[in-house]
Amino acid sequence: MHAISFIQDLAVIMLVAGVVTVLFHRLKQPVVLGYIVAGFIIGPYTPPFGLIHDEDTIKTLAELGVIFLMFCLGLEFSLRKLFKVGATAFIAAFLEIVLMIWIGFEIGRWFGWSTMDSLFLGAILAISSTTIIVKALNDLKMKNEHFAQLIFGVLIVEDILGIGIIALLSGIAVSGTVSSGEVFSTVGKLSLFMIVALVVGILLVPRVLAYVARFESNEMLLITVLGLCFGFCLLVVKLEYSMVLGAFLIGAIIAESRQLLKIERLIEPVRDLFSAIFFVAIGMMIDPGVLLEYAWPIAVITVAVVLGKMLSCGMGAFIAGNDGRTSLRVGMGLSQIGEFSFIIAALGITLQVTSDFLYPVAVAVSAITTLLTPYLIRSADPLSQRLAEVMPKRLGRVLSLYGEWLRSIQPHGEGAMLAAMIRRILLQVGVNLALVAAIFFSGGYFAQRISAWLSGWISDAGQHKALIWGAALLLSLPFLIAAYRKLKALSMLLAEMGVKPEMAGRHTQRVRRVIAEVIPLLSLLVIFLLLSALSASILPTSELLLVIAVVAAGVVGLLWRWFIRVHTRMQVALLETLEHHDGHHR
Amino acid sequence: MHAISFIQDLAVIMLVAGVVTVLFHRLKQPVVLGYIVAGFIIGPYTPPFGLIHDEDTIKTLAELGVIFLMFCLGLEFSLRKLFKVGATAFIAAFLEIVLMIWIGFEIGRWFGWSTMDSLFLGAILAISSTTIIVKALNDLKMKNEHFAQLIFGVLIVEDILGIGIIALLSGIAVSGTVSSGEVFSTVGKLSLFMIVALVVGILLVPRVLAYVARFESNEMLLITVLGLCFGFCLLVVKLEYSMVLGAFLIGAIIAESRQLLKIERLIEPVRDLFSAIFFVAIGMMIDPGVLLEYAWPIAVITVAVVLGKMLSCGMGAFIAGNDGRTSLRVGMGLSQIGEFSFIIAALGITLQVTSDFLYPVAVAVSAITTLLTPYLIRSADPLSQRLAEVMPKRLGRVLSLYGEWLRSIQPHGEGAMLAAMIRRILLQVGVNLALVAAIFFSGGYFAQRISAWLSGWISDAGQHKALIWGAALLLSLPFLIAAYRKLKALSMLLAEMGVKPEMAGRHTQRVRRVIAEVIPLLSLLVIFLLLSALSASILPTSELLLVIAVVAAGVVGLLWRWFIRVHTRMQVALLETLEHHDGHHR
Repeated sequence: MHAISFIQDLAVIMLVAGVVTVLFHRLKQPVVLGYIVAGFIIGPYTPPFGLIHDEDTIKTLAELGVIFLMFCLGLEFSLRKLFKVGATAFIAAFLEIVLMIWIGFEIGRWFGWSTMDSLFLGAILAISSTTIIVKALNDLKMKNEHFAQLIFGVLIVEDILGIGIIALLSGIAVSGTVSSGEVFSTVGKLSLFMIVALVVGILLVPRVLAYVARFESNEMLLITVLGLCFGFCLLVVKLEYSMVLGAFLIGAIIAESRQLLKIERLIEPVRDLFSAIFFVAIGMMIDPGVLLEYAWPIAVITVAVVLGKMLSCGMGAFIAGNDGRTSLRVGMGLSQIGEFSFIIAALGITLQVTSDFLYPVAVAVSAITTLLTPYLIRSADPLSQRLAEVMPKRLGRVLSLYGEWLRSIQPHGEGAMLAAMIRRILLQVGVNLALVAAIFFSGGYFAQRISAWLSGWISDAGQHKALIWGAALLLSLPFLIAAYRKLKALSMLLAEMGVKPEMAGRHTQRVRRVIAEVIPLLSLLVIFLLLSALSASILPTSELLLVIAVVAAGVVGLLWRWFIRVHTRMQVALLETLEHHDGHHR
Repeated sequence: MHAISFIQDLAVIMLVAGVVTVLFHRLKQPVVLGYIVAGFIIGPYTPPFGLIHDEDTIKTLAELGVIFLMFCLGLEFSLRKLFKVGATAFIAAFLEIVLMIWIGFEIGRWFGWSTMDSLFLGAILAISSTTIIVKALNDLKMKNEHFAQLIFGVLIVEDILGIGIIALLSGIAVSGTVSSGEVFSTVGKLSLFMIVALVVGILLVPRVLAYVARFESNEMLLITVLGLCFGFCLLVVKLEYSMVLGAFLIGAIIAESRQLLKIERLIEPVRDLFSAIFFVAIGMMIDPGVLLEYAWPIAVITVAVVLGKMLSCGMGAFIAGNDGRTSLRVGMGLSQIGEFSFIIAALGITLQVTSDFLYPVAVAVSAITTLLTPYLIRSADPLSQRLAEVMPKRLGRVLSLYGEWLRSIQPHGEGAMLAAMIRRILLQVGVNLALVAAIFFSGGYFAQRISAWLSGWISDAGQHKALIWGAALLLSLPFLIAAYRKLKALSMLLAEMGVKPEMAGRHTQRVRRVIAEVIPLLSLLVIFLLLSALSASILPTSELLLVIAVVAAGVVGLLWRWFIRVHTRMQVALLETLEHHDGHHR
């Protein structure tokens, strides 16, 4: 009986994990570390050997653990939170990731590892561990301090950038090369996909969940959520992105539904079960022999992680205008690697591009840095005092002047409001154009199939193209019109601001009107050129294009108001979902 | 990548299950039926074919579903509830199970099926479905009526008897024969194991859970519960009982802990996930061809289930003293088969003793009877009115006289209290003797290993036996002394009641004393003979036995009070767990 050996595996995993985690909890160490040690104990490299019979099934369940971990990370992530994090989070996260990837890559090269190993090492070191930081700050009772809020902001930005890294690494691993064009196109496509998925998802998913929630059955809600999660993961895999990305995105989408609290309560035990298996499976892969053999790299990488993250995050926080003490605390709080690193290391193994030693090395570095985290956070204050004493007075004054200068150049009052308005308009234009691009992309993607289907009625391939392109244009019209109107509003705003009566004199009104008309028309032209480039494969001949343009102009003229109403309704639905939700979010 | 095809399977299962269950919920049908239909749709026998790639892993997860289903049944079961259900539950459940096994067996023989198929068919028909009844009564808003309470009582007793059936079937399937001696010995060993597991479990497990709960981490509590669950299942499997039994027992043990509510909240999503997979996997096994081929047996069995359960349960309820209308409602409420039947059918397949057609037949019968359940419950009242009109007046009067007569012979006041006291004492004696028997059994079981270990010090095998037997006796002493004292109390009670001064005159006191002394001594003798028979394999020679007896007598004389204190402390701990819990139980 196959099932019995499987139950035995689960029994061993849960029993050992239970005992070790209780022990680790008493020693005030994170549960995650307990799981890894439990896995190490029952793993094949440490006596007693052979406690696990069915490693394949355990590994499959461990992959489910990754999906649920990322899904719950998505649930805890929220677009609203992302909009709220300040400059500190963006600057620190960006600096950290760039610097750590570079350091990791250089260390790998220095030890003579392959390019791919070095690249993955860099990615492994790039992202800090939410789980471990939350646990450490909880234990130290520092969760509500200012620097902790900054750290959580950095972690949110890191999650998004980490998702990008995973997509990039998958692409690079498949193609085997790193060209800047490819990076650009991958990032572009990924952003496009994420925007479309988020917009469509937030329009649809919360409605589905609200419908199912009306039945007041926890079971049905859970099954629906799992169906959405796995279904979306599957879609993402078919589009050749990583499952991890899918789990995170659908989590972020479901996070906007009103049932979030209930869903979190239902999904948490499932996540705990599978993530325990995931972390135990990680521990099982640790071979003490490999650790001994790679003791030197592990030591070097550990030091690099602690110093590198301290420096990059601390500097990022400082550049964004925080004082030295806060910056140091942010930097030292983020000085570890964790679950994201395991996921990236696992990705390398799944794609078969990294060597076997990379995973255990990553686990060892994570374990050591995890153990160090609480001590680092606690020693940040004494260290900053010590630094202040040692630092030359002049340097200290320059540094504090920087903060004052930064605060002085920040836009205030009307200027800040205007900047926020412009940001908002540009975001809306961006989202609308992304949707248009997605429609044309899909048209190009399905062109062959549609063409084959159309050939029953129309024989000319050129006319097929014209039909597909025309249909894509028709579908895009609401978004194009919306983008045009937003751009017009923006140009009016800019004209109002940029052309002051003091400069233009009695021509003020005329110059303003010209600017307000020219900018949107110019941008529309740019958009059309871009669209033609994007949809090159389905672009019809110029005569047909002219016909389409005339038809489209007619449609726009006739249905202008209707298009605006449709778009407004969609926008209202989207904003309602995002805003209604406000009261429900933790 | 193996994991992706697995995720795809899960995505398909969850998506189809989600849609179909929402549909079934709108049609006011149980969710379970929706899962089975979803499984049927994505199964290999219906188009579109081949939606599931990795059937083995799905089946393994489905077995986890069975474990979690039975575990949660155990959590909802409680010893306290079992003590509270009245005569109706015992009589109706017993009648139903005996009659349905017989009917099922005869139908199987009539269709020319093999003995084993017929026997399993009987077992499949024996037990009604808690899930479906609860759902139907909920929908009809009848959950709090008197007859519904009676039905829940029947279901609790059925659960325990069902566990016995599973153990018996496993035994019979392995040995291939049905001898009454074997049935007796299987039931005896099973009861013994269950009593020991419950006593030891209730002494240990709630303490472990209370310790872990102090850390206030849902994750650790969940992992501990899962560790206990799988660990106990593994132990039960090693003792050659069914995993299902283990899951139910450990559930019933954990149900006595104070963390029950929290544990149920944590375990429910996990159960929902895996039980959905279980029911979908059942649906996947349905081959429409088999259903058509076996349409005639399915029809016959369905009629047999509805009529047989209506009759047996209705009669049982009536015999226990309920009026005709209530009895009919109880009978018609229990007229279906469900999850227990699937588990028994799956057992037959796992043990490879039943034919392939039995499972789909059971599923089909379950589906039809499930659909009928709400209509049957609703038509019970009109039917009982119709019957009352049709029935000859004389018969009606006889039947109602039966109820009155039954109530007249029930013990009242002092008599009822006395009966309750005697029951309580006999239960305590039984539990103590079961523990003693378990100690001697374990001694016999481990004799060889202990003997091998002892041979380093003592060479004579006879002395080994004497040592083991002596140790077992020493361990048993607290329980033996407790049993002796309870029996003495009982015999005093009996003497007081049985020997009235009117009969014995001035000898009353003397006769009473003789009875009070003789009964416990006689029972002790019987107990010792039983023990010797039970521990035949480790019984030492009579000379050594004499030595042991003398030593034991000395120990008893010296440590009498200490033994009583130890036993009292254990008993208090046990009762505290059972009683403290009262306020927490739903």
